[in-house]
Amino acid sequence: MKYLITGGAGFIGSHIVDCVLKNGDRVVVYDNFSTGKELFVAHNLSNKNFKLTEGDVLDTKKLTSAMKGADFVFHMAGHADVRGGFDDHSVDHIQNLEATQSVLEAMQKTGVTKIAFPSTSSVYGDATVHPTPEDYPFEPTSLYGATKAAAENYIRAYASYYDWQAYIFRFVSFVGERYTHGIIFDVLKKLKKNPKVLELLSDGTPKKSSVYVADGVEAIFKVIGSTRDRVNIFNIGHQDILTVDEIVDTILAAAGVEIRKKYLGGERGWKGDNSFVYLDGRKLKKLGWEQKYSFQEGIRKTVAYLKNNPDLLD
Amino acid sequence: MKYLITGGAGFIGSHIVDCVLKNGDRVVVYDNFSTGKELFVAHNLSNKNFKLTEGDVLDTKKLTSAMKGADFVFHMAGHADVRGGFDDHSVDHIQNLEATQSVLEAMQKTGVTKIAFPSTSSVYGDATVHPTPEDYPFEPTSLYGATKAAAENYIRAYASYYDWQAYIFRFVSFVGERYTHGIIFDVLKKLKKNPKVLELLSDGTPKKSSVYVADGVEAIFKVIGSTRDRVNIFNIGHQDILTVDEIVDTILAAAGVEIRKKYLGGERGWKGDNSFVYLDGRKLKKLGWEQKYSFQEGIRKTVAYLKNNPDLLD
Repeated sequence: MKYLITGGAGFIGSHIVDCVLKNGDRVVVYDNFSTGKELFVAHNLSNKNFKLTEGDVLDTKKLTSAMKGADFVFHMAGHADVRGGFDDHSVDHIQNLEATQSVLEAMQKTGVTKIAFPSTSSVYGDATVHPTPEDYPFEPTSLYGATKAAAENYIRAYASYYDWQAYIFRFVSFVGERYTHGIIFDVLKKLKKNPKVLELLSDGTPKKSSVYVADGVEAIFKVIGSTRDRVNIFNIGHQDILTVDEIVDTILAAAGVEIRKKYLGGERGWKGDNSFVYLDGRKLKKLGWEQKYSFQEGIRKTVAYLKNNPDLLD
Repeated sequence: MKYLITGGAGFIGSHIVDCVLKNGDRVVVYDNFSTGKELFVAHNLSNKNFKLTEGDVLDTKKLTSAMKGADFVFHMAGHADVRGGFDDHSVDHIQNLEATQSVLEAMQKTGVTKIAFPSTSSVYGDATVHPTPEDYPFEPTSLYGATKAAAENYIRAYASYYDWQAYIFRFVSFVGERYTHGIIFDVLKKLKKNPKVLELLSDGTPKKSSVYVADGVEAIFKVIGSTRDRVNIFNIGHQDILTVDEIVDTILAAAGVEIRKKYLGGERGWKGDNSFVYLDGRKLKKLGWEQKYSFQEGIRKTVAYLKNNPDLLD
């Protein structure tokens, strides 16, 4: 098997790469290094099954050329900063939706018929059912959620037109080694900048979960190895739910820091944020997957990683 | 009240215009006349409450200028040919999704906070629940359905960012006066071209419904007058369901034509078609709306209209 992995030098993408290579398969990483880092794939550069192509997913011609001969596409590249879409209304549209359509066009041109895509719990918006199952309708409250949902729908349309197979994963945040954005990152950066007081966006009450990346990647490959529908949709969440205040305390404890916290916002951290994210994981559990790491262990491992790689916080 | 109606010279848009004017409100029609026709608004040209601006929705600057002072936007412009997206993968993306984002940007710039949007039963794809309720998840099988679903999600995101109110209507086909595309149109065109044999795309078994435009427009205003959620979503379907073969027979009888039918396809008329469309109308019915015209009456009225306006078939 040969995999083309867009965003393969990014946080989650690079873990997918490691997994594919461990299985003895071949991989082409296609990344524009806008947020991806060579550091995350450096250990694979000498592997004969590994190839690195620098390119932008929006460059359909270059992407098509890189995709030739692939059997399976992981489209991991995307705009992952949920907050950013409020100030810039085009970034999610271009980097999440148009980039996905570029991938789909390249697949049609090269004859690749299988795709895996990281969607998000944000497609459910302020869901009124918790835990939220996969058949809950899309109710996104941010352009990040809206464009990820739209990308899912475009994938469905192409899968229907050309009889492809699609694997769509609706994630909560992933944490762990090579983590480069999100609340743990933000808190550690703020501690570096101001060691006296920690200013936070919400009132501390939003309830969230995150999944340790090794667990999440295992879930992805478990699904791909077990399901054969045209469109296979799976939540990947954590059964542990913590408030933002508890998450911050866990980060601070792991960092060994005592500091005054100052909550500046309300029940939402930002415009379009969802105050309670809790995904129904029963569909995934039926395939035999169980998370090995608790929410708090994931946070601690992430803090330890960022302490060992302080340059990432610059 | 002042309304800005994109696509206001089109089939459904021009009926919305008539309704707004009848209520004594003011309207600006914004239309690029790609499929809209001056004929459809000609009777309003002398009305002091009516203003016509020729422009493309994708021209955000011009649209913003036309929208100034409006209280409510009906975004009726769009690409309505479901089949076309299979051969041209960009037309729905541009005309349905990017056009909608252009409208949303113009609303933000002008401070308009209310929007009505015609979505489609195609967002449900090959639904497994019939009649299909509004909380059925998006499972589009065409780029038409995918881009309409995406536009709904973008509207949701802006409504969440800026606290707007949105009215989203998931239609089956509308029929009636000023109808310019769809199966009735196709059949009559084919009869004109070849009066000996009528070639049809499917095997005649797909089950569909349509709503007479006066009924549909009444439903739209009933919803807008009665509901006040941030995002209000309503199916507009018909309780009568006919097979394509029955629809064709109704068209032929109304046209007074006997002809040999030749079905060329399978249970789908085209790639991405849905073989059974039947919407749950209970949410709408609770507001007190009932259709006045049967499915077959709608077809007969449409055939009569096209017979009286044969130029539309050229």
